[in-house]
Amino acid sequence: MKVLLDDKIVERNEVKIDMEDRGYQFGDGLYEVIRAYNGTFFTADEHIDRLFTGAKKIDLVLPFTKNELKERLYKLMKENEIETGNIYFQVTRGIAIPRDHSYPDPIKVPAVFTASTTKVPRDQAKMDRGISVITLPDMRWLHCDIKSISLLGNVMAKHEAHKVGAEEAIQHRDGIVTEGASTNMWMVKDGVIYTHPDGNLVLPGITKIVLLDVARKAGIPVKEEAFTLEQLKNADEVFSSSTTIEAMPIVEIDGVKVNDGKRGPVVKQLQDLYVKAVEEVCGKVR
Amino acid sequence: MKVLLDDKIVERNEVKIDMEDRGYQFGDGLYEVIRAYNGTFFTADEHIDRLFTGAKKIDLVLPFTKNELKERLYKLMKENEIETGNIYFQVTRGIAIPRDHSYPDPIKVPAVFTASTTKVPRDQAKMDRGISVITLPDMRWLHCDIKSISLLGNVMAKHEAHKVGAEEAIQHRDGIVTEGASTNMWMVKDGVIYTHPDGNLVLPGITKIVLLDVARKAGIPVKEEAFTLEQLKNADEVFSSSTTIEAMPIVEIDGVKVNDGKRGPVVKQLQDLYVKAVEEVCGKVR
Repeated sequence: MKVLLDDKIVERNEVKIDMEDRGYQFGDGLYEVIRAYNGTFFTADEHIDRLFTGAKKIDLVLPFTKNELKERLYKLMKENEIETGNIYFQVTRGIAIPRDHSYPDPIKVPAVFTASTTKVPRDQAKMDRGISVITLPDMRWLHCDIKSISLLGNVMAKHEAHKVGAEEAIQHRDGIVTEGASTNMWMVKDGVIYTHPDGNLVLPGITKIVLLDVARKAGIPVKEEAFTLEQLKNADEVFSSSTTIEAMPIVEIDGVKVNDGKRGPVVKQLQDLYVKAVEEVCGKVR
Repeated sequence: MKVLLDDKIVERNEVKIDMEDRGYQFGDGLYEVIRAYNGTFFTADEHIDRLFTGAKKIDLVLPFTKNELKERLYKLMKENEIETGNIYFQVTRGIAIPRDHSYPDPIKVPAVFTASTTKVPRDQAKMDRGISVITLPDMRWLHCDIKSISLLGNVMAKHEAHKVGAEEAIQHRDGIVTEGASTNMWMVKDGVIYTHPDGNLVLPGITKIVLLDVARKAGIPVKEEAFTLEQLKNADEVFSSSTTIEAMPIVEIDGVKVNDGKRGPVVKQLQDLYVKAVEEVCGKVR
């Protein structure tokens, strides 16, 4: 298995991360996951744009242009012969000694970039069936718009879900639903689709943007408005979205069925529209 | 320079951190810094206890007993001939492939432990003179009692201070002072010392515990009570505390002098009491 280390493709086992890499000591870095179908990335530019936006927010000097990055990512996908799968990549603020909270000079301390790939087929059965989730208070920081590797809060929320056999944790701040531990959150009520507006409390999900776009074009009413836990539990349909799971029905919340406990018609329509959008770029989705 | 990797002392350059170590991808780990004076740790047990408490909070299975850890830390200090200096150590949730938010099975994925030392003399001139700080909203997560390596929020706050030539950032939630980016925060008003009570909004600082203890024993009134930014700015004295800076006077906040801009008598008394407490364990402080 090959991976990317800075601008080179190397054997995975050759990669040596420094123990004083700021990614390791401070979670001081950013990451992205891009999904490919049939060997072609879907929304690569959007993911790369978000990385650059995040880097600006934390004053991280990225060691490549957008085009250079995209080229590198494609090169690795080809090298590893990934048709349908994900590429994970991250950039940290480099190796600064001695350890100090403040940002080091990016001239002296260049960022460290790594990327790896995994073959991940689409799980159509799961997308048809849907998943169970729990709800819990959102304990994370107030920069959730930044896709940072300081993820312990997300990890802890996900663990709470897994402890009770659920797959995702719907987080809320004082009863207002924000997002999942690794997904954006949606509900459908009386034919209208709701999701939390962008801002500092949620990630500006790329899949969310695509879903909003295809829904609007299909004439489905969409409101980027926050909703409460109570509204969520009385919704007609609930679903989550991310690059890897696309639009995933949520059929049970805190052990209680959503509606009849089956995937609803609106999320089914959105799934189909999403696949259509993917197919326009990447060819037939299997 | 030698370092610790799990239970071995090795050359620093031999250490290879895996690119899929959860510390690197999720900030999924804990850390501590212990200070030694004259080759003897001060409050080592308290730091080690805090690590174990944090590990319990995030369900991290530590790969050593408290005694084994202390032995390892001492071994490295001796190996590197550190008399007055710091040992930094961290434990991450290990190398789990493929990347997944949820906690892996600790039997299959053992934690990864690393430690390094630095010689750091006491900066008495700075402790006499004091430092400048800024104030800003606390954007961090709601588990600040956990000394995690998911530190980007702290790093960003510290950077804001450094941008304007200040040394620390006093964070507040809706006007209530919580703590600094890497220190606990204190004020003195009418002879009474105030600091934020323990809980999920601040780190239970080891130096804070020592200072509370020596203050109480010396008969100085102490209140573990939160205070506002306004109270802070009208305080008689302000100071911060941490393992590495002990009790550090703050003489300027947001460009405005605290009182007459000089170290006050209460923090001076606390500095002396702290040194006395250190000397009882570690011998003469120089």
